[in-house]
Amino acid sequence: MGQQLPSGLFKRLVSRRHVLASSALGVGVPAAMLGLRGTGQAAAEVPAQRAAGATHRITMYAEAIAGTNMIGYGLAPGQATVPGPILEMYEGDTMEITLVNTTDKRLSIHPHGVDYTVENDGAPLNGSFNNPGETRTYVWKSREMFQAEGRRWMPGSAGYWHYHDHAMGNDHGTAGLIRGLYGALIVRRRGDILPRRQYTVVFNGTQINNRLAPNTPMFEANLGERVEWLVIAHGEFFHTFHLHAHRWADNRTGMLEGPTDPSQVIDNKDINPGSSFGFQVLAGEGVGPGVWMYHCHVQNHSDGGMVGLFLVRNADGSMPAGAQEAIDRFNGHVHTPAAAPAQAQPHVHG
Amino acid sequence: MGQQLPSGLFKRLVSRRHVLASSALGVGVPAAMLGLRGTGQAAAEVPAQRAAGATHRITMYAEAIAGTNMIGYGLAPGQATVPGPILEMYEGDTMEITLVNTTDKRLSIHPHGVDYTVENDGAPLNGSFNNPGETRTYVWKSREMFQAEGRRWMPGSAGYWHYHDHAMGNDHGTAGLIRGLYGALIVRRRGDILPRRQYTVVFNGTQINNRLAPNTPMFEANLGERVEWLVIAHGEFFHTFHLHAHRWADNRTGMLEGPTDPSQVIDNKDINPGSSFGFQVLAGEGVGPGVWMYHCHVQNHSDGGMVGLFLVRNADGSMPAGAQEAIDRFNGHVHTPAAAPAQAQPHVHG
Amino acid sequence: MGQQLPSGLFKRLVSRRHVLASSALGVGVPAAMLGLRGTGQAAAEVPAQRAAGATHRITMYAEAIAGTNMIGYGLAPGQATVPGPILEMYEGDTMEITLVNTTDKRLSIHPHGVDYTVENDGAPLNGSFNNPGETRTYVWKSREMFQAEGRRWMPGSAGYWHYHDHAMGNDHGTAGLIRGLYGALIVRRRGDILPRRQYTVVFNGTQINNRLAPNTPMFEANLGERVEWLVIAHGEFFHTFHLHAHRWADNRTGMLEGPTDPSQVIDNKDINPGSSFGFQVLAGEGVGPGVWMYHCHVQNHSDGGMVGLFLVRNADGSMPAGAQEAIDRFNGHVHTPAAAPAQAQPHVHG
Repeated sequence: MGQQLPSGLFKRLVSRRHVLASSALGVGVPAAMLGLRGTGQAAAEVPAQRAAGATHRITMYAEAIAGTNMIGYGLAPGQATVPGPILEMYEGDTMEITLVNTTDKRLSIHPHGVDYTVENDGAPLNGSFNNPGETRTYVWKSREMFQAEGRRWMPGSAGYWHYHDHAMGNDHGTAGLIRGLYGALIVRRRGDILPRRQYTVVFNGTQINNRLAPNTPMFEANLGERVEWLVIAHGEFFHTFHLHAHRWADNRTGMLEGPTDPSQVIDNKDINPGSSFGFQVLAGEGVGPGVWMYHCHVQNHSDGGMVGLFLVRNADGSMPAGAQEAIDRFNGHVHTPAAAPAQAQPHVHG
Repeated sequence: MGQQLPSGLFKRLVSRRHVLASSALGVGVPAAMLGLRGTGQAAAEVPAQRAAGATHRITMYAEAIAGTNMIGYGLAPGQATVPGPILEMYEGDTMEITLVNTTDKRLSIHPHGVDYTVENDGAPLNGSFNNPGETRTYVWKSREMFQAEGRRWMPGSAGYWHYHDHAMGNDHGTAGLIRGLYGALIVRRRGDILPRRQYTVVFNGTQINNRLAPNTPMFEANLGERVEWLVIAHGEFFHTFHLHAHRWADNRTGMLEGPTDPSQVIDNKDINPGSSFGFQVLAGEGVGPGVWMYHCHVQNHSDGGMVGLFLVRNADGSMPAGAQEAIDRFNGHVHTPAAAPAQAQPHVHG
Repeated sequence: MGQQLPSGLFKRLVSRRHVLASSALGVGVPAAMLGLRGTGQAAAEVPAQRAAGATHRITMYAEAIAGTNMIGYGLAPGQATVPGPILEMYEGDTMEITLVNTTDKRLSIHPHGVDYTVENDGAPLNGSFNNPGETRTYVWKSREMFQAEGRRWMPGSAGYWHYHDHAMGNDHGTAGLIRGLYGALIVRRRGDILPRRQYTVVFNGTQINNRLAPNTPMFEANLGERVEWLVIAHGEFFHTFHLHAHRWADNRTGMLEGPTDPSQVIDNKDINPGSSFGFQVLAGEGVGPGVWMYHCHVQNHSDGGMVGLFLVRNADGSMPAGAQEAIDRFNGHVHTPAAAPAQAQPHVHG
């Protein structure tokens, strides 16, 4: 990979070897392995040398999370989180996921954006799932763009994707999704800029990462750090994701290809069930450090608690003036649903 | 048109002279005529020679479909289908549609994306509709992009559009839409790649093409064939269209213009009332033959039956291993609405 | 600014010095000042000379609108409108808004798309709001794109944005939005084409600009004039904006950068709470003068009155044949909600 990246970027990546694996508010997920990136507070190491078309072999555990009604994916026993770990690869890579079902329910793992045969669909339609207690391996492939007839190109796999259960409760995994069986999947194109930190935001039903404010994740960065937001939705509702004081291009990377890139620049985007997008911003760039809200901009959703915080610390990692007060205000706040109650999240017994 | 296309493509088109006009599950529509393309299972012939700025004159019949509560558009008496036939032209062409209203209700045909005067609006606001039993001709024009002041261009008509009733029941055609008066309209730019097969998927209310699984259309192709998906929505609900194991660029063609095309690549897209999009994929490319689901990814919509099948046969047209079992599973499946019932589709008496 | 624009365009702008400030149906807003543009029926003057990185200092008054339950923003006492005035600047400019709160409620002004420090957030989270009767200055900055690591560019501020209250009633301004505290904000890139007229359409709850047909705005232009549409949504519902007989590219400007611009061309677009977009069309281009509907394409929304008129006069400003009849039809029309009632707009007591 070092060969595909400018040497400056390569050095920056090497310097990330020691990263935070902890996370605020209990919503982080463990740092991942080869070709994967940690999540929550800081990006994990990216190996300096990686062959084109690498195969990443990982084991994922679907398990109940003690003390909650949630079921999550994790990279080791006892490490399941909601959302699950960020899985990451380059176009051309293959990922082999051995999924261990530690629950007493049928479940699976179904990815968006990558290639898989019917056996690896993760859908009951194709008999592709784990029975209770069963272990099964799913293979996902990816590829680069290639030229079609004429001047156009069939797209490659690069994108901000996601994975989720497609088998618990019914044929579409509705029960598994409600319980928390979802996570982010990134396929990068060679040369893509890598972030310093990554955050996963899943609008699931009328919650964020199966939590409501003030228990939603507080994401942190130091001023100027490049951070990557991964936004996914599941469930029955439409949403719009809004981030205060930052904006991005509505395209594959969130950045512009140059002055003739026609992409609209936005700070609020529709995110409806089964969709995902991602973007990178420089934390606090042009606006300074402080505490910024991210929230669903549907009013009765934000009023009901679909809101979290993005804490941009000073460049040296210290707390900016007023930040703690804002956090305290947020934590002490009573989130008031609008007068018209949000439609109840259906409870599906798997 | 042969002059605009690579000769290889031209030859491929000529070889399509004998095409299937039948369709699976009764949801296909008849092959169309000059400048139109068949739908359902295979693309109809495209004439080898076609003048720029051609005028296509067709007669459409709006009529009740026996044995159902549906009303559809058709290109000949007794051939009305839901959705109606795919109408297709090149930028610069004109389409003159003589609409015969065989029903006892006021109705019209209103297109998206093309040019029409107020007399051809298809809207009661402009007195543009067919009374019961009346015949009326509507003229739609199209055009290429042209340079605006400065370096930008005003867009041409090319796109994956649609047409629908705008007069039955009330001023917006709500009753006609519920009954099935809708279809796809394609305006191509010269040089666009032509598909081998075309499928129309209309998310109307909480149904697909006014049907629920397992009675939704099963679309078929042979491995590697270029197929074109036309996706439209009507009614009162938001939806997301998801296709398993295939993806496309979120832009005009679904393909990339090259490595600097910034378009996001997706496999799940918002499709809300009055909108449409289209894309082309190579059936089973990178994933192999088999049975793949397409469905609304709003969970209580898919659970309630907004799901259909995409059968990718082996390259020689034979059934791939396991495909029949998947189809049988689908047909025998009880589609279970989520615990929280979907909002009822309003029933409008036209 | 003249230096950035072709001289022909510059001359055209200068010729606009005398413009209409009145508006049809009482929904227009006053012509604005330096770097701002009038709205409603015609674009206001744009100063011939404007330094790069100008600072625009304006005073905005939040006040109740007599005889209604609405509260609006205005550029002078007694001039508040719903929506508020269009605020406009070039990338690099700063806007200093001194907001006078003439009401007995807490409120603020929160912008999308531009840069602001936590003190200027307009959000109670950061203690950034006006108490009843209080005056407070908010500073918004903007910037041009700049190169990121590698070949990509971090986006600038240019876009069709909006501003709104974020403090009345609760922490998200839900009560202020319901009452009408919202407006359009445009940040232009140097060289962008300027329109002749501008229209603001806000889908708020199930209303347009807090009105239902036939009291929704009728926008007017002469045949061939370049007009700019600014579309915003707030509230609890999803919508799609449809304009008859006109279309635009789904990108930053609504125009194409040239033949390889991949943008989809559309005439119907999702517009959900907190989002905004804009585009320019030539009034009646290719279709002629007449009365065209714009409406939400969600059927029970249009049926319930989310529809307005776009009157394209003859090039000399006279009424086209049939236009008055269509207007009369519209005004006399009984707008019938669909059988299934739209969800009630929550009433929040601020």
